[in-house]
Amino acid sequence: MQIHHFKDIISPYSTIFFDAYGVLKNHSGLLPGVLETFSLLDTLGKDYYILTNDASRSPKALAEGYQSEGLVQITEQKIISSLMLASEFLQLKVTKGIIACIGTTKSIEYLTSFGLKAISIKEISDEHLDDMAAVIFLDDEGFDWSKDLNKTVNILRSTNIPAVVANTDTSYPASSDEINIAVGSLAGMVERIVSKNFIHFGKPDSQLFLFAYQHAMQLGSTPDKRKFLMVGDTLSTDIIGANKFGLDTALVLTGNTTQRLAETQINSQGIFPNFVCPSIAG
Amino acid sequence: MQIHHFKDIISPYSTIFFDAYGVLKNHSGLLPGVLETFSLLDTLGKDYYILTNDASRSPKALAEGYQSEGLVQITEQKIISSLMLASEFLQLKVTKGIIACIGTTKSIEYLTSFGLKAISIKEISDEHLDDMAAVIFLDDEGFDWSKDLNKTVNILRSTNIPAVVANTDTSYPASSDEINIAVGSLAGMVERIVSKNFIHFGKPDSQLFLFAYQHAMQLGSTPDKRKFLMVGDTLSTDIIGANKFGLDTALVLTGNTTQRLAETQINSQGIFPNFVCPSIAG
Amino acid sequence: MQIHHFKDIISPYSTIFFDAYGVLKNHSGLLPGVLETFSLLDTLGKDYYILTNDASRSPKALAEGYQSEGLVQITEQKIISSLMLASEFLQLKVTKGIIACIGTTKSIEYLTSFGLKAISIKEISDEHLDDMAAVIFLDDEGFDWSKDLNKTVNILRSTNIPAVVANTDTSYPASSDEINIAVGSLAGMVERIVSKNFIHFGKPDSQLFLFAYQHAMQLGSTPDKRKFLMVGDTLSTDIIGANKFGLDTALVLTGNTTQRLAETQINSQGIFPNFVCPSIAG
Amino acid sequence: MQIHHFKDIISPYSTIFFDAYGVLKNHSGLLPGVLETFSLLDTLGKDYYILTNDASRSPKALAEGYQSEGLVQITEQKIISSLMLASEFLQLKVTKGIIACIGTTKSIEYLTSFGLKAISIKEISDEHLDDMAAVIFLDDEGFDWSKDLNKTVNILRSTNIPAVVANTDTSYPASSDEINIAVGSLAGMVERIVSKNFIHFGKPDSQLFLFAYQHAMQLGSTPDKRKFLMVGDTLSTDIIGANKFGLDTALVLTGNTTQRLAETQINSQGIFPNFVCPSIAG
Repeated sequence: MQIHHFKDIISPYSTIFFDAYGVLKNHSGLLPGVLETFSLLDTLGKDYYILTNDASRSPKALAEGYQSEGLVQITEQKIISSLMLASEFLQLKVTKGIIACIGTTKSIEYLTSFGLKAISIKEISDEHLDDMAAVIFLDDEGFDWSKDLNKTVNILRSTNIPAVVANTDTSYPASSDEINIAVGSLAGMVERIVSKNFIHFGKPDSQLFLFAYQHAMQLGSTPDKRKFLMVGDTLSTDIIGANKFGLDTALVLTGNTTQRLAETQINSQGIFPNFVCPSIAG
Repeated sequence: MQIHHFKDIISPYSTIFFDAYGVLKNHSGLLPGVLETFSLLDTLGKDYYILTNDASRSPKALAEGYQSEGLVQITEQKIISSLMLASEFLQLKVTKGIIACIGTTKSIEYLTSFGLKAISIKEISDEHLDDMAAVIFLDDEGFDWSKDLNKTVNILRSTNIPAVVANTDTSYPASSDEINIAVGSLAGMVERIVSKNFIHFGKPDSQLFLFAYQHAMQLGSTPDKRKFLMVGDTLSTDIIGANKFGLDTALVLTGNTTQRLAETQINSQGIFPNFVCPSIAG
Repeated sequence: MQIHHFKDIISPYSTIFFDAYGVLKNHSGLLPGVLETFSLLDTLGKDYYILTNDASRSPKALAEGYQSEGLVQITEQKIISSLMLASEFLQLKVTKGIIACIGTTKSIEYLTSFGLKAISIKEISDEHLDDMAAVIFLDDEGFDWSKDLNKTVNILRSTNIPAVVANTDTSYPASSDEINIAVGSLAGMVERIVSKNFIHFGKPDSQLFLFAYQHAMQLGSTPDKRKFLMVGDTLSTDIIGANKFGLDTALVLTGNTTQRLAETQINSQGIFPNFVCPSIAG
Repeated sequence: MQIHHFKDIISPYSTIFFDAYGVLKNHSGLLPGVLETFSLLDTLGKDYYILTNDASRSPKALAEGYQSEGLVQITEQKIISSLMLASEFLQLKVTKGIIACIGTTKSIEYLTSFGLKAISIKEISDEHLDDMAAVIFLDDEGFDWSKDLNKTVNILRSTNIPAVVANTDTSYPASSDEINIAVGSLAGMVERIVSKNFIHFGKPDSQLFLFAYQHAMQLGSTPDKRKFLMVGDTLSTDIIGANKFGLDTALVLTGNTTQRLAETQINSQGIFPNFVCPSIAG
């Protein structure tokens, strides 16, 4: 397996998509060299965006997190999150009625900012049932798993309303050696119990890549897919999703895929990045 | 679809296996006519056992529940539960070390009664890790879902120990129109996240039917499988499991399978009971 | 469940996407009233396209099929097929080397028309292995299932190349009461055996809807998704896929979903079309 | 990972179960040292049986295969195959009517030897439909995959009869570096298409271990499960199945699990054999 330095592979590309966790940051903050790499990208005139399944807060709040760590280039419009897709879907499809929200206050506030009647699952009671229009899974925090997931199961059994999942991830890193169960796993469990088809947004589904691609074009990127590079740490989300959408891909070894297992996993999973880089640092 | 009265079909059988919930009882107690049917079974000299995936308490405690409702014939030795199988497995396979238990105090006490070092997941801390021998999923109650399921995920990632599931059910009835998420669903979610193979006990797996069959023989039943009848309300657990094990089966319509949908479900699922009865009442 | 006449619901829409089989035609040809409906669409100035998972031949050949039955409006540029997406992927991603093709001569010829080195699996031998660049599943006909699927399994085990599936359907109608196994099922079986991640194109994946949407815009359609209607006979492909992409949907009852079961299936699957119509006939 | 010599671990056991392929033989015949090991087992007075998912021929024919290679100790009664379980099920459950058989002539003849009306799928025609009682998947050879699997799908859609799978394996070795698709994969594909629940017999299901255990006891083995050892080359069938049934297990590295990957696979799959041995040779 050939290993490349990230700065040596970017020359043919005009727009670069980055996964967030495991590529730009980890549990202790920005990864080493990230600030320098973004300075280089600016110098070279490259366009870039962050594609994330993090639906725990708004794109604006996610951007502010990067800025507070010194990555001041990451403004709100540099963020593409699965929450944006889920929110767009609800705006198009749920024109009236209450949306029961499984997640944090910050994620619910993002939905209400578009005029949606988003209410935390904690506050949903029987009197809301007749006016219920959708259920959305946003985050693993902000509610009581036992009480509120049981409530969600029974809402979905007794009503005929769609269920939306704004983060397809099954787990996320909680520290250097621990993970947490992500809302994608909770939603998957409920989906199996109620035997209905939920509507899932997030990598590896091509819709997030499409959304990012169109967003980048609106902000001036070329429409030529050959000029886009997706950089990620996870074969089964970042790499296969971008690859299927027609983009070139670089796997970095600072997150889910370790140097020791990268080649084995690439071949056993049959997911082939164009490049493998130790990190995005110079 | 031909419908039979239960009392008209039992004549060829000497031993009858009953599912518990939806056959003998529901959320409000024993179903109508159950007491009379068991008196009839006694008069006719039929042997009978209750086969259940309920691992929330010991067989003795389950039996006491029936007795307190007047079904005094149901002694401890009439109960065959998936908890008994899981417990037998742990006794054979986990001869030393701590067993982390996801479930109620009553289910944990059943394990400790065999000399197993069973400790609630709530009380497990880092210092137990080196002495950890197994994880067992017992019940959906008795712990904090968010905190303790995340703890379980990380225990299973950082150790090489087996995980046992003592109840394969995905949900159970909580009232006439509500269900609760069962521990089988919680275990399935954790199993997917950690990508390991858990060891599941309970219907429809043939091991529970085998256990019941051997137990019945030890207590005097015939070894001739043609003399056994399994009575259940669920096609995908009671009926297919007993059928595969070689027993005749009767579907009753007092639980999961309703009169309105029985024929459609039988044909669409391809699971064929020998008989369909409205209930076990005369 | 409210039932609408198709002609009564189309007024707000400027572009209509149709599924092919079960909506426009069945095993005996065009469905009654289809010619009249397309004349009406022309009169009303509606734009329309056919979205199909049929990868057995080129869009041009599919269009000629409609024209030969009198639907002369269906030119090549009215056809959007999953084969077009798979072909675009191969052109972007497989710039050299041999593509082993599981399918008909007509589908293989479509790939070679773009300069791809597409060779039937029947003709692949050991000497091709070093130059093999991809495997593509196109159709259930044109090869020997036993011999050539075993050959495919071993090619994918011994090489590190991507596998593409150009038709995700699991079966298709062969007559009024029989179905055939579709290539999506064959590909799924091989995927499980080799434990690799294949790249699937076709409804319900949003990429086909995106492709159709962009194609329609290039030919003059509005970018406003609220002006698009998807018409299909299958909840789990046509309706959920278009719905997730943000389009309105109409379920017709001339194919996979019958009048008798429509309401039950809609509610049990949790997939909700905006309209239900007996057919697209006036 | 500690590696043991096979002859050093057998002392506590009185009965040993062996998987066939990858343990006793491979594509070129008996593995080195197998004859000597069985002589040793005889000298030590150990009882032994072969547990196999091979349903392509009768236990007698399988035994004759071993004898012709010099392993004369392997008589018919030393063979426990999933075909025997499937046959027992059909004898108990299908007392009249035709059984459509997907497999070889030899496997069909085994069923007819019990008086079952077993007919090859090749010879089934519309006139048999009214008298059809079951479908059984026996082997990947002996029929035309395309024609006869499509026929099977339509039989199962138009009748309400059970489908039995007599070999759950998904593939089997065809040479030192090639595999063939096994009938378990073909059955799984058909099961998904018709959306019915097939009845599967074979490892890792505990029913095969139970059958072997009871068979061994009838022939004089002890009922003490602690005196049984299962020897296999596959974690996900031989080892997890025997372990769940309560038997001790030894993984050998002459088949599916290679020395290089054994430790990784054991830990990543969470399936823990009691012993790991290079082979069963001395």
